[in-house]
Amino acid sequence: MSQESQVLVENEHNHDVPDGSGHGYLTSKDGYLKRLRRIEGQVGGLSRMVADERYCIDILTQISATTRALESLALELLDDHLRHCVVRAAREGGVEAETKLSEARDAIARLVRS
Amino acid sequence: MSQESQVLVENEHNHDVPDGSGHGYLTSKDGYLKRLRRIEGQVGGLSRMVADERYCIDILTQISATTRALESLALELLDDHLRHCVVRAAREGGVEAETKLSEARDAIARLVRS
Amino acid sequence: MSQESQVLVENEHNHDVPDGSGHGYLTSKDGYLKRLRRIEGQVGGLSRMVADERYCIDILTQISATTRALESLALELLDDHLRHCVVRAAREGGVEAETKLSEARDAIARLVRS
Amino acid sequence: MSQESQVLVENEHNHDVPDGSGHGYLTSKDGYLKRLRRIEGQVGGLSRMVADERYCIDILTQISATTRALESLALELLDDHLRHCVVRAAREGGVEAETKLSEARDAIARLVRS
Repeated sequence: MSQESQVLVENEHNHDVPDGSGHGYLTSKDGYLKRLRRIEGQVGGLSRMVADERYCIDILTQISATTRALESLALELLDDHLRHCVVRAAREGGVEAETKLSEARDAIARLVRS
Repeated sequence: MSQESQVLVENEHNHDVPDGSGHGYLTSKDGYLKRLRRIEGQVGGLSRMVADERYCIDILTQISATTRALESLALELLDDHLRHCVVRAAREGGVEAETKLSEARDAIARLVRS
Repeated sequence: MSQESQVLVENEHNHDVPDGSGHGYLTSKDGYLKRLRRIEGQVGGLSRMVADERYCIDILTQISATTRALESLALELLDDHLRHCVVRAAREGGVEAETKLSEARDAIARLVRS
Repeated sequence: MSQESQVLVENEHNHDVPDGSGHGYLTSKDGYLKRLRRIEGQVGGLSRMVADERYCIDILTQISATTRALESLALELLDDHLRHCVVRAAREGGVEAETKLSEARDAIARLVRS
């Protein structure tokens, strides 16, 4: 819940930005949504494979493909985030830059370890 | 396509097994289906987060959680597979045991590297 | 320490095996030692890169190569382990088979998550 | 070899920086060297485990610990790099900022996939 409200505050903050830039990933929002629909389809396919009692190894192959698709999406989102939010904060400096860098470090650690 | 037909042959083969055991994961089929529905919900949640232009870092956190859920599922499926198909093949020995061990090795490598 | 003594017991146990087969990986012991020396050299190279104040990105590239070399070694050791210790235990059945399968599952999970 | 020369050029470039800041990681150079010596010791320990024919699962546990130590080091180096080189380039802007961001993206992808 506290994460939820932090996000809303964040969004409001961004909507206040004069140039309307908001979150970096918006530039390719449709591309991200398209890829997420494909990943949702892959997970639906996994359910059908289990329901049809398909061979374990084939299900594992499909899980690896789905995980890789999620990882690629995460890497692209992170790149967008560094190029927009982090670069903007770096230019402004101060506490905001420090916060953005710490957040990016933690998000990268979660990706590497997941 | 050739992978498709290999799976069907595999299924037929398993249905021939006198004790009707089939694939090991069947024992917990409902559990797997439940977890996959939850993962499908997580991916749907990711689409809504992007559509609502939520903060990148929160989307990345949710992607890491989804990837971890898929990995846990894969580890459990693999454990079932080792305990049933691989152990059965190991007892029978011969070409079938060799095939099952090579398949397991390749599936583990894909999981470690994805 | 308790892990240490468990290993010694394990070794003694294996030396009791009539056919003297011991751990599966012994068949390629020299190969493993050669690869570990190369990995030790890669880590030594990393120390020299830091001492010489080389560019971060190049150090990170070298760390990724070292991690991949360790992972490949682990995957081969695990394959040897499944083909020898686990298959042997599967044929014997009982508590020993159960123990070996649980150990393998945990080792695979550590590899996937590290 | 071409990578080698690129690094030397990079180093020269950094030595030209008026404030003598160089690579960000230099601030904790001793800390990195100490950790790398410990990792080199872990790899040496792995060689002794194989030479002593220790149990596979214990060797795999030690490999996972070594991989995690390398990953933690990489994450800290990357954080230093983002905080120093990338932030500096972001402030200067232009081609240099673009280069640094692309390099960081590729290094993160290698870490996530290794």
